[in-house]
Amino acid sequence: MRIDVVTIFPEYLAPLNVSLVGKAAARGLLDVRIHDLRSWTHDRHNTVDDTPYGGGPGMVMKPEPWGEALDSVLASDPGRRPVVVVPTPSGKPFTQELAVELSAKPWLVFTPARYEGIDRRVVEEYGERLDVREVSIGDYVLAGGEAPVLVMVEAVARLLPGVLGNAASHQDDSFAPGPMAALLEGPVYTKPPEWRGRGIPEVLLSGHHGKVARWRRDEALRRTSLNRPDLIAGADPASYDRKDREMLSVLGWQPGDDGRFWRTGEGVEE
Amino acid sequence: MRIDVVTIFPEYLAPLNVSLVGKAAARGLLDVRIHDLRSWTHDRHNTVDDTPYGGGPGMVMKPEPWGEALDSVLASDPGRRPVVVVPTPSGKPFTQELAVELSAKPWLVFTPARYEGIDRRVVEEYGERLDVREVSIGDYVLAGGEAPVLVMVEAVARLLPGVLGNAASHQDDSFAPGPMAALLEGPVYTKPPEWRGRGIPEVLLSGHHGKVARWRRDEALRRTSLNRPDLIAGADPASYDRKDREMLSVLGWQPGDDGRFWRTGEGVEE
Repeated sequence: MRIDVVTIFPEYLAPLNVSLVGKAAARGLLDVRIHDLRSWTHDRHNTVDDTPYGGGPGMVMKPEPWGEALDSVLASDPGRRPVVVVPTPSGKPFTQELAVELSAKPWLVFTPARYEGIDRRVVEEYGERLDVREVSIGDYVLAGGEAPVLVMVEAVARLLPGVLGNAASHQDDSFAPGPMAALLEGPVYTKPPEWRGRGIPEVLLSGHHGKVARWRRDEALRRTSLNRPDLIAGADPASYDRKDREMLSVLGWQPGDDGRFWRTGEGVEE
Repeated sequence: MRIDVVTIFPEYLAPLNVSLVGKAAARGLLDVRIHDLRSWTHDRHNTVDDTPYGGGPGMVMKPEPWGEALDSVLASDPGRRPVVVVPTPSGKPFTQELAVELSAKPWLVFTPARYEGIDRRVVEEYGERLDVREVSIGDYVLAGGEAPVLVMVEAVARLLPGVLGNAASHQDDSFAPGPMAALLEGPVYTKPPEWRGRGIPEVLLSGHHGKVARWRRDEALRRTSLNRPDLIAGADPASYDRKDREMLSVLGWQPGDDGRFWRTGEGVEE
């Protein structure tokens, strides 16, 4: 996979050289190219922003440098068309599903903005020729799109074949497609068996795979009920087996007329 | 504000030296301290992980190095108690509201994990004495908590007094408390007035503040309807004025029996 990032803070993308993404690049699984947007300015101050039309606080990124930058990136491989990912709090949510979709693309171009964002015409212009996605990593406001690019590249890169050592560890991921789709992962434990007077749940020492699996699923339900009741309320009820339903009942959830669960307010919180 | 980060990838946190956070630190508004978790290991391989109790793929971070690391950080200022922020996909969602809450704390300690996470007993142990928050930045899976720490530190730091040049630019943020609470920001434009044959909306040149404000709000409603219908469906209907309701109707939304809006499926998408 090829990944291009155009930014006014190239040094912010340094983490792409370390850890999982850096190792994948070193092994030739990823071709990451960071570009300084200011290379495509022509005044001596390397201006990339100006005041917004219509007034108001903040600055808007000018369309010309972005147009020249994207043209240059596109011209480096005229036979192919990248997916352009525009990080913005006004975009559609970045989800694990989108990470999986993007991980199947051969080429991604990220355009992290600063200030109040990029002049709208840039997305209009390239949206007519390319698959342009405006994407938000969450409901909070950042100083720029660079941190979201680190997040998205990492989420995508770890899904590429050969990047993670053990492909099996995908399957139990929170939000991964499959039986854990709408469940958070429960607690994990490792040696020593006692630490600062605290032991570990006995079932984990039982060697009984079925009981361990059931305990983990119950703990996942408990965690999800506590931290993300929206996931339980929104889940397909067919995804819950009889034992799940018993646990949900203990946690205060009941099936409604449409089969989906709602909270009665009488359950145990933790 | 003091911020400590304990990690096995200190170099991943390098972006905290640049851009907004780096400048805030340089001006003395932030005191950022990065610690290498492996400093608190005692074997020659600096082991921080081991196999999970109960079996399964992946590795779990051992409790001892985390315990020693946190004790050491806490001992550096025994008179105060930090809020400990644990990035994990199993946590409560990180929101702008939580960013605002954390920005009022004098001291935050972040514990980004790798692998399958940290032995549960660490959160139990410190949760008895400190305010420990398990937080997720979104519904996707990453290789570790370092990128989420960059995201959270940036979201918090930009809210600190004196960090952003123009305090007014907070008010129009997406997700900020106030009239824009459940609306995404609409498009922005700057000079030149024509770029690659594309002009800008005339209203932005009108000089009529009321019309500009209305246009921006209509565009915000349009963007929100397209990218985040969940925000409109979940919003307090009292937050919409008469003109908002006209625009929502055009976009295919109607008030239901409880006053909240639902989509009829007959509106204009964009």
